[in-house]
Amino acid sequence: MEKQPLYEGKAKRIYSTDVADELLVYYKDDATAFNGLKKGTIDSKGVLNNKITTFFFDLLGKNGIPHHFIKRVSEREQLVKSLKILPVEVVVRNIAAGSLAKRIGWEEGRKLPAPIVEMYYKNDELGDPLINQHHIKILELATEEQVKTLEEYAFKINEILTNYLREKKIELIDFKLEFGVHNGQVLLGDEISPDTCRFWDSETGEKLDKDRFRRDLGNVEDAYKEILFRLTGEKA
Amino acid sequence: MEKQPLYEGKAKRIYSTDVADELLVYYKDDATAFNGLKKGTIDSKGVLNNKITTFFFDLLGKNGIPHHFIKRVSEREQLVKSLKILPVEVVVRNIAAGSLAKRIGWEEGRKLPAPIVEMYYKNDELGDPLINQHHIKILELATEEQVKTLEEYAFKINEILTNYLREKKIELIDFKLEFGVHNGQVLLGDEISPDTCRFWDSETGEKLDKDRFRRDLGNVEDAYKEILFRLTGEKA
Ligand SMILES: Nc1ncnc2c1ncn2[C@@H]1O[C@H](COP(=O)(O)OP(=O)(O)O)[C@@H](O)[C@H]1O
Ligand SMILES: Nc1ncnc2c1ncn2[C@@H]1O[C@H](COP(=O)(O)OP(=O)(O)O)[C@@H](O)[C@H]1O
Ligand SMILES: [Mg+2]
Ligand SMILES: [Mg+2]
Repeated sequence: MEKQPLYEGKAKRIYSTDVADELLVYYKDDATAFNGLKKGTIDSKGVLNNKITTFFFDLLGKNGIPHHFIKRVSEREQLVKSLKILPVEVVVRNIAAGSLAKRIGWEEGRKLPAPIVEMYYKNDELGDPLINQHHIKILELATEEQVKTLEEYAFKINEILTNYLREKKIELIDFKLEFGVHNGQVLLGDEISPDTCRFWDSETGEKLDKDRFRRDLGNVEDAYKEILFRLTGEKA
Repeated sequence: MEKQPLYEGKAKRIYSTDVADELLVYYKDDATAFNGLKKGTIDSKGVLNNKITTFFFDLLGKNGIPHHFIKRVSEREQLVKSLKILPVEVVVRNIAAGSLAKRIGWEEGRKLPAPIVEMYYKNDELGDPLINQHHIKILELATEEQVKTLEEYAFKINEILTNYLREKKIELIDFKLEFGVHNGQVLLGDEISPDTCRFWDSETGEKLDKDRFRRDLGNVEDAYKEILFRLTGEKA
């Protein structure tokens, strides 16, 4: 990789390609938490998340969700359609954890009576604050129609993923999605991985996601490997 | 006042009356800010807010907003219909200030392209966090229909108040409303005063509200008096 990336984020680098509307995404081992306050690396994370994301986008595409993913092209790289990312982090939650548990005062692990969607302003300087549809409107982050689409896709993706993961004995606690626009159409973008989801073992409750890094629980890499194994049968 | 109050809040005490569905509200001089971290008193605040609230509820009633206010019965007391308060603080904003300025990174005083509504969970222990309609649903704070009604009333109240206040050379920056249910109907409750609104002098930008207390700007009582004077012509 000699080329300069178009953009380097906390977990990935984005490169242009010879095709105008296609990008190469390079998955790094860098891990951050608490809005960048905690920094580290998770060995092989880039390789694992590239594979896990590939798996989930394939699954979602087969189930009718339009997305940016084209193909995985190497251990750490995938080809995607170039999106104009909507700076809204769309979070779906099934069980109280993390900031929701704090916000509403529910103990972590309490099942919500129904899945919920939250939208956060994707803005590191502001610490990704929770926002509502009116904030989205005045900040011009997305149109009202796009907000509706995001919410519809978010709930649909939650159904597809929870149903699939239940069979793999993985409880989907919550997850974060990013969407973008390509030729006027809203597509699911970014990644779906243990960096962006909370996965708990259905039987033991063991955390199999980035909370192991955030909370110094150890065996971080093993958790990511276990997720890949349960999804694909592949021993990384 | 010998009776024990049914409830004592940060700014008011609530007493039962001989009429089953009527309550007496007693306005105190106590002032708090930053979720109770800052405490003090503002001389005559109770008297002034009782009068100012009386004025605003009259104005809103004449303009078709259903509310709890019956009548002012003494310097510090008013009679209201008993409500089952919905624990949602409904905030309307016209100009960025306070927590909105922080949340979205806009300088205080920047005009919003359109008024917005925010809903906060009325819960001192949790610090009144911002919530969305999904949180309201899972917490059972209000029905979906009630949420719609709250938002409609909030925008309508904003129109009535901004139009009125503009003539009095007062800019209505933002304000907080509380609603409750009486015989199945949603009514506006609580108070509308310099404790719950941001008022800026239209010409000088001078703050005429509780921010003078929050930020130690001095002349707090005078600001409340000035608001009463502009609304009613009464020199308190
Ligand atoms: N298809 C795409 N087109 C353009 N940008 C994308 C696409 N998918 C993801 N991105 C963006 O790539 C950037 C790099 O990802 P990441 O390292 O996770 O960044 P961040 O630190 O912003 O989370 C992010 O800003 C993400 O929104
Ligand atoms: N019509 C009403 N019926 C019942 N409760 C009311 C009514 N109007 C206001 N309240 C409640 O009275 C309480 C006392 O007011 P306040 O001192 O401002 O309390 P707080 O500290 O909760 O803000 C508040 O909980 C408010 O929601
Ligand atoms: Mg990211
Ligand atoms: Mg109050």
